[in-house]
Amino acid sequence: MKVLVVGANGQIGRQVVELLQESEEHTARALVRRQEQAESFETSRVEAAVADLEGSVEEITEAAKGCEAVIFTAGSGGQTGWDKTLLIDLDGAVKTIEAAQKAGISRFIMVSALQAHRREHWNEAIKPYYVAKHYADKVLQSSGLTYTVIRPGGLLNEKGTGKVAAAESLERSSIPREDVAKTVVASLSEGHTFNRSFDLVSGEDPISEALKRI
Amino acid sequence: MKVLVVGANGQIGRQVVELLQESEEHTARALVRRQEQAESFETSRVEAAVADLEGSVEEITEAAKGCEAVIFTAGSGGQTGWDKTLLIDLDGAVKTIEAAQKAGISRFIMVSALQAHRREHWNEAIKPYYVAKHYADKVLQSSGLTYTVIRPGGLLNEKGTGKVAAAESLERSSIPREDVAKTVVASLSEGHTFNRSFDLVSGEDPISEALKRI
Repeated sequence: MKVLVVGANGQIGRQVVELLQESEEHTARALVRRQEQAESFETSRVEAAVADLEGSVEEITEAAKGCEAVIFTAGSGGQTGWDKTLLIDLDGAVKTIEAAQKAGISRFIMVSALQAHRREHWNEAIKPYYVAKHYADKVLQSSGLTYTVIRPGGLLNEKGTGKVAAAESLERSSIPREDVAKTVVASLSEGHTFNRSFDLVSGEDPISEALKRI
Repeated sequence: MKVLVVGANGQIGRQVVELLQESEEHTARALVRRQEQAESFETSRVEAAVADLEGSVEEITEAAKGCEAVIFTAGSGGQTGWDKTLLIDLDGAVKTIEAAQKAGISRFIMVSALQAHRREHWNEAIKPYYVAKHYADKVLQSSGLTYTVIRPGGLLNEKGTGKVAAAESLERSSIPREDVAKTVVASLSEGHTFNRSFDLVSGEDPISEALKRI
């Protein structure tokens, strides 16, 4: 499949693009906000498109056309205000869902956050972020798209182990970004993850096995 | 009906409470955040309950029990950060919807904002606020409750005229808070407003007539 990676310049996004390019089944189209980011991907022979998640649905739809799946791993990050959390993490995500619908793309994977579905477990320090992720996930779940919502725990930059725990509800824990990226890519064609949402942390099971038990 | 007024201490909320108390059909229960606000209402012989929209759904449910309708006119206001917009205007509203469901209350009126349903018309200066209102409205519309979403234009403190324009989509304009409060209360038992959403600005028609044409 040709896969639109939204947030391709982010820490998980870059690894997702790399894994897609290395795979035999998939290729990536990196969606980025600025032209120079697109050129940087193109220099590495990765197809790229430019669209702003604060822009129009039409702009994102144009960038998505011709892809068969979307991976949403964009986020406003911790350096901007909560206004950007509303505009990017919530409304930007929903615009991307609408763009996928308009572009006729049925497969959509959302990178969310551990326990985003359970308000009583939201991390107090970043509760507004959880609000945004929660409602974006809910819109996807009722969108009619073949969704997977992956809710990783605390993100680490260390090397992945390839071993995870994946379930509807897990205790707070952490996971290397590399293992999140691998799980996202492995979910693309794994029917057990279709229309499912799950927490993801480091664990005991090889990713492919963990996904079969979702 | 006994009507829970959420945000009873706000500028529209206070007028809604007063109108309900003056009416023959309804009585108000003022929902406020602090005990001293409740006491102030009780001094004026208005029933009051205390709950924090940043608290639990259970807390709001307890405060709602025994009411037959909810009017949501709370907001974090312009003096707090966008984090509160996420926590109050979006998640607080949705918690109140969930509380109504748990308390067996089927009628729910939401005070929203002009054109909150159309992203391309959101006021650029307060776009994150529109994001919050938009998604709260959407949750209400798919809640199964008998909803009315009222989307007033720019709010004025001047005296009301009792004449409004109400329709699915209106040009940007303004309206006195008093006329918003009157429209909200008039909508409670007006079947034409059940499961409908509409923009509201000052206009030519008496409120009761405008609502019959929704």
